[in-house]
Amino acid sequence: MSELQLDGSINVSERTRPLVAALCEHAAEYRVGVSRSDSGVTIIDAGIDAPGGLEAGRLIAEICMGGLGRVALSGAAPFARWRWQVDVTSLHPVIACLGSQYAGWSLSHGEGKGAFFALGSGPARAMGSKEPLFDELGWRNPAGETVIVLEVDRVPPPEIAEKIVGRCGIEPAQLTLILTPTSSLAGGMQIVARVLEVALHKVHELHFPLGDIVDGAASAPLPPQSPDFMTAMGRTNDAILFGGQVHLYVRGEDEAARDLAERLPSSASRDFGKPFAQVFKDYGYDFYKVDPMLFSPARALVTNVTSGNSFEAGALHEDLLAQSFGA
Amino acid sequence: MSELQLDGSINVSERTRPLVAALCEHAAEYRVGVSRSDSGVTIIDAGIDAPGGLEAGRLIAEICMGGLGRVALSGAAPFARWRWQVDVTSLHPVIACLGSQYAGWSLSHGEGKGAFFALGSGPARAMGSKEPLFDELGWRNPAGETVIVLEVDRVPPPEIAEKIVGRCGIEPAQLTLILTPTSSLAGGMQIVARVLEVALHKVHELHFPLGDIVDGAASAPLPPQSPDFMTAMGRTNDAILFGGQVHLYVRGEDEAARDLAERLPSSASRDFGKPFAQVFKDYGYDFYKVDPMLFSPARALVTNVTSGNSFEAGALHEDLLAQSFGA
Amino acid sequence: MSELQLDGSINVSERTRPLVAALCEHAAEYRVGVSRSDSGVTIIDAGIDAPGGLEAGRLIAEICMGGLGRVALSGAAPFARWRWQVDVTSLHPVIACLGSQYAGWSLSHGEGKGAFFALGSGPARAMGSKEPLFDELGWRNPAGETVIVLEVDRVPPPEIAEKIVGRCGIEPAQLTLILTPTSSLAGGMQIVARVLEVALHKVHELHFPLGDIVDGAASAPLPPQSPDFMTAMGRTNDAILFGGQVHLYVRGEDEAARDLAERLPSSASRDFGKPFAQVFKDYGYDFYKVDPMLFSPARALVTNVTSGNSFEAGALHEDLLAQSFGA
Repeated sequence: MSELQLDGSINVSERTRPLVAALCEHAAEYRVGVSRSDSGVTIIDAGIDAPGGLEAGRLIAEICMGGLGRVALSGAAPFARWRWQVDVTSLHPVIACLGSQYAGWSLSHGEGKGAFFALGSGPARAMGSKEPLFDELGWRNPAGETVIVLEVDRVPPPEIAEKIVGRCGIEPAQLTLILTPTSSLAGGMQIVARVLEVALHKVHELHFPLGDIVDGAASAPLPPQSPDFMTAMGRTNDAILFGGQVHLYVRGEDEAARDLAERLPSSASRDFGKPFAQVFKDYGYDFYKVDPMLFSPARALVTNVTSGNSFEAGALHEDLLAQSFGA
Repeated sequence: MSELQLDGSINVSERTRPLVAALCEHAAEYRVGVSRSDSGVTIIDAGIDAPGGLEAGRLIAEICMGGLGRVALSGAAPFARWRWQVDVTSLHPVIACLGSQYAGWSLSHGEGKGAFFALGSGPARAMGSKEPLFDELGWRNPAGETVIVLEVDRVPPPEIAEKIVGRCGIEPAQLTLILTPTSSLAGGMQIVARVLEVALHKVHELHFPLGDIVDGAASAPLPPQSPDFMTAMGRTNDAILFGGQVHLYVRGEDEAARDLAERLPSSASRDFGKPFAQVFKDYGYDFYKVDPMLFSPARALVTNVTSGNSFEAGALHEDLLAQSFGA
Repeated sequence: MSELQLDGSINVSERTRPLVAALCEHAAEYRVGVSRSDSGVTIIDAGIDAPGGLEAGRLIAEICMGGLGRVALSGAAPFARWRWQVDVTSLHPVIACLGSQYAGWSLSHGEGKGAFFALGSGPARAMGSKEPLFDELGWRNPAGETVIVLEVDRVPPPEIAEKIVGRCGIEPAQLTLILTPTSSLAGGMQIVARVLEVALHKVHELHFPLGDIVDGAASAPLPPQSPDFMTAMGRTNDAILFGGQVHLYVRGEDEAARDLAERLPSSASRDFGKPFAQVFKDYGYDFYKVDPMLFSPARALVTNVTSGNSFEAGALHEDLLAQSFGA
């Protein structure tokens, strides 16, 4: 037998091309604004001046996952009041979530009050970001047409796109920026669709070997929008911290799988127990004081495919969800 | 920056073309009958002589929504006996539901016993119907190939298609008629998939400004079929009235959002409390005596995106659902 | 009126072509291995040397159903611990499940210890298998490019592909073999996605007329993987026997529909009451001693579309599921 494709190269930018094209071609239907910058970069506004919406957010979430994820909105969440749930599955969770969806590319311009700062997410990261994570993954996306998602509430200064273009080694016309404010419907949707990514990121923080992650699926309730950034940000976090569920499939020793399950839920963090906006406020809005172990789904089930045993920890917290999502 | 697409024109007829083509090309698989009238109109029988089925109904529901909706059948309804639930989301709920899916085009021919009457639904409405709603929406679909769905149990006389063709300003060969009897599986499915439309229609009846509706998602249990028109019609209504849930996102004052939530559920109607077939019978089968406020999901959650507050009213009524869906 | 397509011929091989192409083209993303045998047969390894995954399994399940089924993974199963559920619907359940998905083509080569044995599933069955079921269906898939799925943990000897090619009357280059070990993630997924097929197969065993089956939908929880074949096989069976639910729509007398509902659930079998691996062991691993009536979903709802009445029997068994899926 001759091998046709033992380990073909994964190109998340290429996989997202039809999704980005759908968003542009049907901009009116998705209620997003599409414009072109002077340098030729395509800018999609999914919640700043354009209203956007849940379906735009769902599609943007699949773009964030590099076209390797399936984000579905289903009406059967296990909460009496909040019935809409975001279900996330993926062809290749490590590449989709950590290689593409994780908002890990720190982009800034200017200083002081007028400074612009954003964390970039999506396929372009795998092309141009210098995060050490990519050395660990041993994977990079080849240069070409690509897209990046920024959770911002204003159009970034031209220098941001310039920087991305330069780092990716592409032409401005090959870049699409998607802008989703946290307080927009599309923004909230695409953040909650990070429930599997958040779990995998914590798995990585816990130094569990990425190579031992075989598969995963996760869900979280869709939070109600808020025009207030802090409230919106708190609710999207709480949707995952209090209402998120993840099922991971790993390889290795049962001891490691049990340990992972026990440490994975948000309740394993010292900062667990109140809405995120409150945690943040209590730390004087200093993000770096928040325990990084807080960011995780409420409940984790870990199946060790090496033994066939499963380990569960954490629980759903409808009362805390109510405190956060409010009336 | 130059605008590429600030407010492109939405063409629901164009968006449904691939869906209609799939139904025709795979007629045998969907178990629908496809024929052509003498004048050249394509007629799809989805439950008169052809059996049709749930998947045909699901696809027809997406056609009704002008290709702007997602209709999914999932096995997790909150009722122990009736587990299949129809989940409805949309890129652009007002256009999809009120501009296309609402069965608002009154079509009749002949008089007395042999008279034909039907309410037309789907993309062709936005092309040829004279409903005043379209002035309110400020949107019309340009003339071209289109499709209309009729909930009827016999093939309409040629004059009906002629009338549609004339009003739309198209050639007969550009029109497709889809026929779905209420008592068929496809018919029942596509009616229940109106759960979001029914909610938006009542929102409109309550004089809530359509421009303040930002987004929405709704679900309802799939009712069991009945060969009896009255029973079938009653059950599809009851699936929504007793088992439907809607989450709307609106703009404006909290007072208006709370008021909308409180008035929205079916239980806010004077006619609430018994299966719809009984209500109808008690009014001597005079549809115009039924309180129009009855037609609405059982439970409503309204999130005001201007304030971030949510308001809930109504509840699921499994006992009434049991009375309707029977043994 | 002239008939365009009263009863077009259904070609499940043709319908699966884009699904098989997607699996091959995105082999790296789906984590499957694609190779070509010396004779030119394409072989897709979805869990032997390649890891595969849940999404690969989902796609393979849709291939098994001849492109006539929809297999969705949603996070709302009615079990507190096991939240992921496989929902199965179909355009044409009898053709999709019995004509394509049922693993009914017995393929063997060699004798004694080195003998190879597998049950073939998917489109190629309808082209080349001699099962008498096809006479009953009165349907065959015309010769052409096709695909078969084998639940095996090693690459079959070349004689197996030769036999399939010969029986189908095609060239080796027209055949694709998909290999999914029961102990793999893709394997477990595609087996549980047989929940509707298992129900229809029992309906057939109960001598209920296939022509009276109008439609159906079924769901079952996704079981945790096990590297041990017997445990994995037991769990995939138990997911259906203890956690599966089916809703069938049939024609005919209420008596027949009620009788079908009562006899359909797994609990109607004399062998019901313990995990399948235990049943199998207690019969000395002699598959032919197991009551064939055991293989069925836990709960059945049968709606008779001729009368509009529904009949329910069986129940979910979370305790037995726990015994099987374990810790």
